This record gives sequence, structure tokens and C-alpha cells, in this order.
Amino acid sequence: MKTRRSDRLIDMTRYFMERPHTLVSLTFFAERYESAKSSISEDLAIIKRTVKLRGIGILETIPGATGGAIFIPSIDEDEARAFIEDMTEQLSHQDRLLPGGYVYLSDLLGRPDVLRHVGRVIARQYIDKQIDAVMTVATKGVPIAQSVASYLNVPFVIVRRDSKITEGSTVSVNYVSGSSERIEKMELSKRSLKRGSHVLVVDDFMKGGGTVNGMKSMIEEFESELVGITVFAEGAFDGRRMVEDYTSLLKVDSVNTIDKTIHVSPGNYLEKVFGKKED
Amino acid sequence: MKTRRSDRLIDMTRYFMERPHTLVSLTFFAERYESAKSSISEDLAIIKRTVKLRGIGILETIPGATGGAIFIPSIDEDEARAFIEDMTEQLSHQDRLLPGGYVYLSDLLGRPDVLRHVGRVIARQYIDKQIDAVMTVATKGVPIAQSVASYLNVPFVIVRRDSKITEGSTVSVNYVSGSSERIEKMELSKRSLKRGSHVLVVDDFMKGGGTVNGMKSMIEEFESELVGITVFAEGAFDGRRMVEDYTSLLKVDSVNTIDKTIHVSPGNYLEKVFGKKED
Repeated sequence: MKTRRSDRLIDMTRYFMERPHTLVSLTFFAERYESAKSSISEDLAIIKRTVKLRGIGILETIPGATGGAIFIPSIDEDEARAFIEDMTEQLSHQDRLLPGGYVYLSDLLGRPDVLRHVGRVIARQYIDKQIDAVMTVATKGVPIAQSVASYLNVPFVIVRRDSKITEGSTVSVNYVSGSSERIEKMELSKRSLKRGSHVLVVDDFMKGGGTVNGMKSMIEEFESELVGITVFAEGAFDGRRMVEDYTSLLKVDSVNTIDKTIHVSPGNYLEKVFGKKED
Repeated sequence: MKTRRSDRLIDMTRYFMERPHTLVSLTFFAERYESAKSSISEDLAIIKRTVKLRGIGILETIPGATGGAIFIPSIDEDEARAFIEDMTEQLSHQDRLLPGGYVYLSDLLGRPDVLRHVGRVIARQYIDKQIDAVMTVATKGVPIAQSVASYLNVPFVIVRRDSKITEGSTVSVNYVSGSSERIEKMELSKRSLKRGSHVLVVDDFMKGGGTVNGMKSMIEEFESELVGITVFAEGAFDGRRMVEDYTSLLKVDSVNTIDKTIHVSPGNYLEKVFGKKED
């Protein structure tokens, strides 16, 4: 059926949001709405202006009758900063303190609103990079990987510490756990990653960097390339980390199990992505 | 700044999509766009019409100056049916066959487009129900739980077969694994679920129903209520399942490791949710 501009704009916005990083052709929209390509072009120009203005992302338009548009989700500095500051505060609550100085994160990483922000924030960092897959380790990294993968619209793959019969043949690597200096093993299903992939590594928490370093070895085993490493939170670590170039949204500076205090500050994300704040 | 209708419609659509099941007030939008409430009311009426027309969901509008609107994501029968038929075909490929008659699913459950559909399809089934949390078991159920939780905008909780020190105190239950009749244990962090919650259980695969039955016991331990059980795929099972009332999107009817064939058909979802198809 023929449509009005307002209906088209609503449906197109929704359509793009469900298919980030995907070229949608003028022809497709023209047929879907039984509208002239010239009208669709005008619609795209309006959407492009609005998503830019609102910091939602970028609508890249490819001109000409064979063209179309690609929606690239993003987040603006103010919203990213507000989210990270909110998380800093929430992580600092003393009731998150667990025996052994661990910090309870599972509730936050099970909340859709938090995960949507985490996904947009991390996807923003790699907006100019080619990424073919997001990699994490089971179990707690999975929600982060899924959310980032959703905004980048690429698959995510899950490395496991224990092999499952439902994974088929696997490739395994040994790695040194950074905190305890034990040798451990991780496995990835052979068919889950193509050779020559560009891989982004994400995880919930990094201390010594041993697990992340294991994933680096895994990426090498698959003759693939590491694009970057971003973790939700990094912990304080005495000594040299096994990974040097990484990004963290949050930093758990210190944990005191006697006074029951946790000190959390923003990680290096904001500075790495937006540069120094001037104020 | 003051805005045009077209800009408002685009931003509002995106805003609703990121906050399903959340009341957004007229006042909020009026201030955000420096527009009269009467204009915002007209915008909402346009969005309401379009999301209904396109089968995207329902925009419930609450009238009056103190009102607003709630977006409830859904999927129409045609799209749900097309998705399930596509999955039926993809699951039937013989290269998914693993030793022991298992079917490889991890690639599908790592694809954002598949997960978005799974989430909308399952959320559609519980559109009239109160759900406070989505529960699953680590690891393979997690992506499904996350996607469903995202469309319902409620937290998801992950039951584990192995306890982690980063979870704090846990509640554990024993359960009988339906296929192997072994006694196993599963645990859930005490703080992850409030008493009196209405819980939806989802998982990737169900055979004898032992794991799902374990989650039922877990829900009872938390003095909470089971709202429903939906799995991505059910397998053929000789004998009586430990769970009777469940929904499956797909059904793996038979697996033949000698001929290397897998026979997959749609599960009971379509009939349960949309009724018998007349044709």
C-alpha cells in the first residue's frame, strides 16, 4: 500500500535499528512503501539529520538509483560519560563486596538497559574498524559480547573452559592465569570462527589479563587478527599485566574487606575514545 | 531546540524501541522537543498506527495531560512463521550433525539477527503476562534469555552448574537429568532473584526436561512463580518428559548418524500462539 512520509519515517527508523551496519537499498524501500525513489531519498536525508542531531549514530547514504543507506549505531560523549558515571556510583555500593574482595556484577550484567548502553559504548569505540566477530569467555562475558555484537551486527563466539559435546571439534590453548599463575586450558569450537577474521575481545572483568591473553593465543590459532580488547571493569593489579593495550569502562581501584569499602572510578575508555576532557 | 514532526517521529521511535514496556510521559517528550503536548499526542497517534500496521508491536497510549505511551514489542504471524521455517531449514543441514546425535546450534545462537527474532517471537507469546525475570541455565541458554529479556525489558538470571566465587551466596537444588537419570546440582546467586517474582524459563534445547525441571525447583526455592517455559528446540525423547507444559520453536524429530540426516520441523509455538493454520 502507498504510505505517508510519517509512516515511512517510523518504519524505516525501526528497520534500520534492527539491522545496523547493513546496506538497505533505495529499491527495497521504494517497493516496500510503493513510493518513488526520490521520496525515499528525501526520507533518508531526514533520518540522517535526526540520528546525527540526537547522537544516535550515523546514517551513511549511498547516492544514486542503486544506492541506499547503512545505519551505524553510536553514542555521544555526554551520554557515554553519564552512563559510565552512573555505573561508577552503582559499583561503589558496599553491598557489592563479596568474600575475597570480589565485586558482585551479575545483576548489572543481567539488566537490558545497562547492556544496551554497554553495547553502544563499546561499539562506538570501534566505529571505524573492520570487525567480523566478537569473542568472549563463558559465562559472564557473554551478555557483553552479545550486546556489542548486536550493535555491530556481527556474530559473537564463546570460548569455554570446559569442553561440551554439543560444540563438535574444538581448538584448545593453554594460558597462564594472571592472578594465580596456574596453567589453564580454554577451548573454542572449530567451526565457530573463520580463518582471517578480525576479532574484538570483550570480557566482564580483567585483573592480571591472563584470560584475555589466552583469547589472544586462541585468535592466533585461528589465523585471525585481534582488533581490540575492551572490558567492563578492570581491577587493581600489583605487577605487570599480561596485556598492555586494552580499554576499560570502569576501574575498581581498591577494595577493603575490613572497612567494607569499594573505590571505583571511570576506566580509560572516555579518554581513549573522546580524548581529555577540558574543564 | 524546537523540532519538526518528522524529527520527533524518528527520535521517538528510536526512544521507544530502546525502552520497551516503559511508560514515557507526554511531559518528557514535550520538554525534550520543546513542543506542545497536543503535538506530541498527535505524534503518538501516528506511531501507534504505524507500529500496528507493520506488526512491530503495540503502542499503548495513556490519554490526558499526565499520560504518555508504552511500547510493547511483538511480531506478526507471517514474520514469526517465516522465521521458524527458515530455522527449520537451517537446522536440517547434515553438517550440523555431531557425534552422539547432537545438533550444532552455537553459530545460530551467536547471530544477532537470529537472536533478535528469537527474542521477539518468545516475547510475543507472553505479551499479556506479567514477567519480572527471565531465567536460564549457563551457558547456551544465555543468549536466548538476554534477547527475550531485552524485548520484555526485565532482568535475566543465570543458573549455573558450577558455583563461582564472584556470585556470592547461592541457593542450590538437586535435579534428575532427564536423559541420563543422574542426580545433578544447579545453583543461583541468592541476590539475583527477589521473592515473589514471576519468572519465564527459556533454554536452547530440551530433551527429557530434567534441566528445565531443575529450574522449576529453583523458582520454588525463591518462593517465586513460573509463568512459562519456552525452548528454542526440543529433541525427540522416548518416554515421559519431566515437564509437560512447554513451548518449542523447533522440533528435532529424528537424527540418523549413519545416513547423516537430521529431520527438523516447527515446534508447537505457532499453534500455541496463533492457533491452527487454515489452508
